[in-house]
Parts: sequence; C-alpha cells; structure tokens
Amino acid sequence: MAVPKEFFSPQSVAVIGASRHPGKIGHEILWNFARGFYKGKVFPINPNSENILGLRCYKSVLSVREKIDLAVIAVKAETVPSVLAECVGKKIPAVVVVSGGFSELGQAGKFLENELQKIVFGTGTKIIGPNCVGIFDAKTNVDTLFLSRSRLLRPRTGNISFISQSGAVGTTILDWLAESGIGISKFISYGNQADIDETDLLEFLANDKETKVIAAYIEGLKSGRKFMQSAKKVSGRKPVIFLKAGKTKKGSQAASSHTGALAGSAEIYSGAFKQTGILEAGNWEELFDFAKALASQPLPAGNKLAVITDGGGFGVLAADEAEKLNFELPEPSKKLKTKFRNFPSYASLKNPIDLTGDADVGRYKTAVESCLKSREFDAVLVILLFQVPTLDKSIDETIIALSRKYKKPIVACAAGSHYTQKLARKLEESGIPVYPTPERAVGAIKAMLSYARFSK
Amino acid sequence: MAVPKEFFSPQSVAVIGASRHPGKIGHEILWNFARGFYKGKVFPINPNSENILGLRCYKSVLSVREKIDLAVIAVKAETVPSVLAECVGKKIPAVVVVSGGFSELGQAGKFLENELQKIVFGTGTKIIGPNCVGIFDAKTNVDTLFLSRSRLLRPRTGNISFISQSGAVGTTILDWLAESGIGISKFISYGNQADIDETDLLEFLANDKETKVIAAYIEGLKSGRKFMQSAKKVSGRKPVIFLKAGKTKKGSQAASSHTGALAGSAEIYSGAFKQTGILEAGNWEELFDFAKALASQPLPAGNKLAVITDGGGFGVLAADEAEKLNFELPEPSKKLKTKFRNFPSYASLKNPIDLTGDADVGRYKTAVESCLKSREFDAVLVILLFQVPTLDKSIDETIIALSRKYKKPIVACAAGSHYTQKLARKLEESGIPVYPTPERAVGAIKAMLSYARFSK
Repeated sequence: MAVPKEFFSPQSVAVIGASRHPGKIGHEILWNFARGFYKGKVFPINPNSENILGLRCYKSVLSVREKIDLAVIAVKAETVPSVLAECVGKKIPAVVVVSGGFSELGQAGKFLENELQKIVFGTGTKIIGPNCVGIFDAKTNVDTLFLSRSRLLRPRTGNISFISQSGAVGTTILDWLAESGIGISKFISYGNQADIDETDLLEFLANDKETKVIAAYIEGLKSGRKFMQSAKKVSGRKPVIFLKAGKTKKGSQAASSHTGALAGSAEIYSGAFKQTGILEAGNWEELFDFAKALASQPLPAGNKLAVITDGGGFGVLAADEAEKLNFELPEPSKKLKTKFRNFPSYASLKNPIDLTGDADVGRYKTAVESCLKSREFDAVLVILLFQVPTLDKSIDETIIALSRKYKKPIVACAAGSHYTQKLARKLEESGIPVYPTPERAVGAIKAMLSYARFSK
Repeated sequence: MAVPKEFFSPQSVAVIGASRHPGKIGHEILWNFARGFYKGKVFPINPNSENILGLRCYKSVLSVREKIDLAVIAVKAETVPSVLAECVGKKIPAVVVVSGGFSELGQAGKFLENELQKIVFGTGTKIIGPNCVGIFDAKTNVDTLFLSRSRLLRPRTGNISFISQSGAVGTTILDWLAESGIGISKFISYGNQADIDETDLLEFLANDKETKVIAAYIEGLKSGRKFMQSAKKVSGRKPVIFLKAGKTKKGSQAASSHTGALAGSAEIYSGAFKQTGILEAGNWEELFDFAKALASQPLPAGNKLAVITDGGGFGVLAADEAEKLNFELPEPSKKLKTKFRNFPSYASLKNPIDLTGDADVGRYKTAVESCLKSREFDAVLVILLFQVPTLDKSIDETIIALSRKYKKPIVACAAGSHYTQKLARKLEESGIPVYPTPERAVGAIKAMLSYARFSK
C-alpha cells in the first residue's frame, strides 16, 4: 500500500479532538501545529469550542471549506469511527489515529479496529495507527507527538528515518538524538497498524531521497511474507536496522497487550533479518548506536581496525571487544611507525596505539592521519579522553578536518560529563559518531562492516 | 600488606615535581591540594622554584621540617628512585607514584620498577603506583588526580569505593557518578602495583566502615593465590564487582603495554570470580550500573519482579530482558488487582503493568505501593517516562517516599535528555538508581539478586 506523501508534507492539518486544556493530548498536538514551526494551515476540530489557541474551531472536518491534507484524531476510541468516516467524506488522504483502545485491549477492541479498516477500505484515505504517537518530520515540522518540546527535544534535520511500533521507545530516541546534535528526516510511530503497516513504511522510506538509514523498533510483523519480499530489496538500497522486541514468552505477552502484536520466536526473526540483510540491534542502545554510524560515515572496506587512545584501559576494553567481534587489530608496519618517531618513549605504538595521558592535538593528528591514510587499516576508532590537561579543545576541529579529508570510516569514543559532552556534541554535529564506551563504539563499527559485506 | 591510612586522611602532603605551569601534571596535582578542598598542610617540592601557587617551595622532602604523611611523586621515571629514597629517609608512610615509564614499557622499565621495590622494602613507606592517577577521597578531599575539576567532576561523599588499574577508566566513572549525583567514598587508581596490590586494597576496603560496595577495574592480578584467599572473605562482607579487561589475546597484549599486567584467560577469571562470590561486570557500563544499585537499595529476597511502566514498548523490552535473566514476572493476583480498579480500561494489569501514556502520579503511587507492599513481588522496576504530559514533577517525591517506607528494592528506568535527566538525578540523589534503558535496569537487579543468593 502506497503511503500518501500528505502524512509528511501536508498543506493543511485538522486536529480532531483539539482541546483548550494544557496537558490534554488534544491540546498538546494542536499546540505543536499552531504554535510550533509548522507552516501550513491548521484547523482545530471540536464541536464544543469556538476558538482554541486563537484559531477558529470547527464542529467537524466537513464544516471546513478548504482542502485538508492531514487529519490527526485524538478522541476516545468509541468516537473514532464516526470522525474517521467524516475524514473519508472530506476526502482527506492522510489520517493519524493517535487514540488508544483498540486491538491492544483484546477482542472488543479488535472489533472496533476492524470498523476503522472497513471505513477506509477502497477509499483514498489511509490511516497510520491507531494507538500511536504518529509523525515527526524535521523538515516540514509536522509534529503529532503529544509531548511538549520542554519535556522532549526534537532533533534537527538529518538523514536517519525511524519507524517505531512503540511511541515511547521512538520518542525517547528522538530526545537522545536531539541532545547529541544528530539529525533526523522522518519519524513514524505506527502503533497497531490497522491500515498502513511496517512494510508500507519501509518501502516508502526506501524511495525517500532524504532518508539514508532506516531504523525500526518492532514488536510483531503484520504480514511476514509481504515483509520478506520487500525487506531484501530495501536493505539492498540503504541500511535497515531492526530492534525486535517481544522475543521471549513474557515479552511477547507484553507486546500483545501493548500493540496487539503477535510477536513470534526470536530465532525466526533473527533468521529472517539475516536473509534479508537487515541489521539486528541486540538492545535498545544499539538501535541508536548503529543508526548514527551508518548515517554519517562511509563503509569500511574490511575488518582491519586501528584503535588510537589517550587512556590505556579504554584501549584494552576496545581491543577485547574488537577481537570478540572478529576484527583484526594489526600492529602498524615499521614504515608506518616511522611517522610516530616523535612520540614519547612511553607511548605504545602497537594497536591500540596508546598516546597516553599527556597526549596533545599534534600527537592525535599524526596518529589519526597516518592510520586514515594507510592501507593497513580499514577503519579508525579514536578514543578521546578530552579531560587530560594537555589536550586542547581544538582537537575537535583537527579530527573533523581529517574525517573530511579521507574517505575512511572514523568513529569516536568519549566518556564523561558536561565538558566531554560538549566536545562530543561538536563531533556528532559534524558527522563523527561518538559513543560513551569503547564496547559500544566497536559494536557500531561492526554494524557498518556487516552492512558493507551485505551490500557489496 | 596493610595499606596505611595516611593515603586517605593525611595531615600533610608533599607534591614532588610540583610545577608552576598550568597543564603540567605536577601543577594540576598541586592545584587540587592547594586550591581545592583539602584541609591539611601542603608542601610543593621543586628544587628550581621558590614559590608556587603562593606556597613556599622546598628542594626536597628532607628540607621540610614538619611531618609529612603523604607524598605524591610526579617527576620523570629516572628521577623517581632518588626522590623515593628521600621519602623513605623522611619516614613518609604513604607515597603515590603517578609517574609512568616502568614495567608497562618492558624489560628496562621493569628493572627501574624493581628499584622502587628495593628502596621501600622493609621500611615504613608504602607505594601506590607507579603509572597511576592515584587517589580521590570524597570526605578528606585528598585528590591526586591530575584532571582539573572544570574538565572532570568529582562525586560527593557516598558509600561506593572504587579501585582501578587504569586511571582513565576509573576517573571517567567518577565523572559519571558526579553527574548523576551519586556519592563515593574512596577511589584508588593503582597502576603497575609495584608495592600495594589489588588484594591489599580489597582487604583495606573490606574493613573500611565508609565503604558499602567495592567496584574494581582490573587488567591482571598480581598474585592469583593471595587474591583467591582474600576475595571470598571480602565478598562475604560486602558486594565486590569486578570488570576484568584483557580477556582476549589482543586485549591481553594491550594490557601488558598499559600496566605490565599478565592478563590470563577469561574462563579462569570468570571461574575464580564465581567461586569467590565476586560479581563480574560484562562491560564497562555494568561496573557502574551494578555498583550504584548495590550501594543504595536493599537486596531482593527472590526473583519475582514487578515491572510498572507508562510506555508499553519499554515494558516489552524489560520483560524480554527479565526472562532472559531468569526472573519471574508473575501476573498480579485477583486480590492485588482490586487495588487497580480505578485505572482506565486500556491500562494493562498483567506484568508489566502498563499505566499507559496518560499516567499520572496517583496511578503510579497505587501501582508502585501495591507491588512494594505485596508478597507477590521481591523487587520493583519502575519505568518513568517523565515526558508524558499528565505526569507531574512531584512523581519523584512520591517514588522516594515509597522507597523509604518499604524495605524492598526499587530500581528506575528513565530515558531522555535534560528534562528527564534532571528528574532522574533527584531520584539518584535519594538512593534510587536510575538507568537509561530497561535492559540495563534489569541487569542491575540481577546483580543484586546474585549477591543476595551468594551472601545468604
């Protein structure tokens, strides 16, 4: 099923269930459209109000004379069918049903959800939801999330798109991305997928020029066969990362109460992902970790990794993880080591290359540039403990310039509080992914390598 | 070997190699003593200066008339033996050798390190180091770390003590703890352990009344037999968590270049840890995660876990991880469910208990209190997506009050940026550990359960 572009770039939006009471879902959604950064027309729909947030309020979408591209429904479950029927009558192509109270509640809710399907069947109206938080588009500022910007940040524009069956899991990742300075193109929380499902969204994003990487949190696939046919094609075009939740008996029961999903066995899913070239995130952090590396860096040509550090222990932890994930950490050749002849005698020139706790920008520049330039390595992990007194803040510019000069993947690890995070953010903003632990950094490079092997 | 108390509560400190140049290690260390929060006397030692940071400078510790309890040596490796000999002459009980350039560099360095051992052998002088960042004591403000407070925060006083063979790994955890509002008692980076080793420190901390939990990052044990004899006794008294680095061939080689450690096989270590009741952290984040849970919460009596959430997807991820780690997630009994009769129909009363995205403080209070009170559960994981519009900031006080009222472990999960982190910090400061992902939260409860089973 084709996903109408009106979900992401509507000229006009109706908020059905708009409320004048701050804290109410129907108020927060309207606020984001009316007072946020969205540029199109906004129509609050509420039969009991005349005016909300300074906008004229309508009794129904049918009372609006102008064209409506997108409707967001946030009324109680029982009322959804009637307002949805009005959307069909108004020929609105895109409808997000935020309301919960459908198949996630069992049989009675399932029946109500079938109603929605019947109402739109064969019409030009498509639904995302119900039981979801809907859409955030960083470019057009379509924002149906009912979470205020003071409590949950929105990321800048970028090239990661993200689909999530869970609203909470999805939106908190948006918050993390925004805090790290990483951009996003489209976010879609699709809930019970009564109409548009994960495969439709996957295919839409595969064709979307603004999307370079697709990340997904799923509890259960709506149609396994449809998904399998599509997934391989999509992941051949751009990296797709899935976090599959509901892998265990208890997790699967929880998924059924959450989005009505039939979760299915972990092995079947993992097998399907492998066959179709989808990268599987082992946990929630990995979904975030892998996406930002694949979105910003070129792919490694092989598994030869250089680790450069100013903290020996971090080098040891990185080496442990790298070996576990089948990387090679070759010692630099004699020829390459001649570049390091000005390093102090206590620096270690093996791999990890340990510049030690009195490392300065010059020492980093020499080490990182030599490894990026050399054919002895396919990727560079640079561990930056910004805290050491000899390391000037200009280290960021140096690393950014080197990353732009050489077409080889570079990933950073930096651990610490505010001082570190400020410098890390600058790297992230310039497309160098930064991880708080060596293990997570190595894991991200592994995801890049897996995709490189699949796609070549 | 007994560890002199002067390392942690010296009346007077000499900084050997004190420098007038900001950025130099010998300057940063002096600054921390002279301008930081340390209350005792401070003697800069530098034959080429008369005065540094407003303090009279001495040519040698032997020129100081008063008693010196602690000396910190930060001169180049070749000079260490002679200044150390002067410390012995001055009868200084505690010496931290920060300088690197010893056994981590191979045979020549090993020879120099043996020199140090010979100099103190049979005397009243004990060494921590060389090749380390030394000590931070949150109560006495002994602080030999050469990292300025503007770049690396120091935690408040608390009951976790932390020993680390790596200075970088150790200090960055201090920075994280400080940012989270979690306290520490003593931090010791011990480097090449030429004199005092990990077992000495372990035994010292076992007897230290201010230490409730011991966390350790180790690359290699100096003496396996000595360690095994001691470890079981120590972990019988208080929880001990170890992160063993250098588990792989590459990691072990890196450890040898870093602290001269002989790292040994992962299996041997894991076996030894299991035998002695030491909790093994699987990665660096776990070391931090486990320590804060064990330091702040009572131990669970069994494996029956209640998961309470306002985000369904988080509940699914928590359930998956809980089942993987052999927790039971029993559904609340009918009797217990009567307490939840005022919850909306779309809330899920199974386990995870899903209060959904319009949860408020009252709903949380009812759910958390019922589970803490009931014999049906041994521990509670409360997932708090603070972002939802209906959840008032007073949720923190409610959770804190409940945690104080019931003697049952409660652990929180909260994910997001500044708004979330501020509220999370308040919980942490009140002894409720908070984790950014459900998986890490469940992992921490598992560590508590493992220790409960070992120690009963």
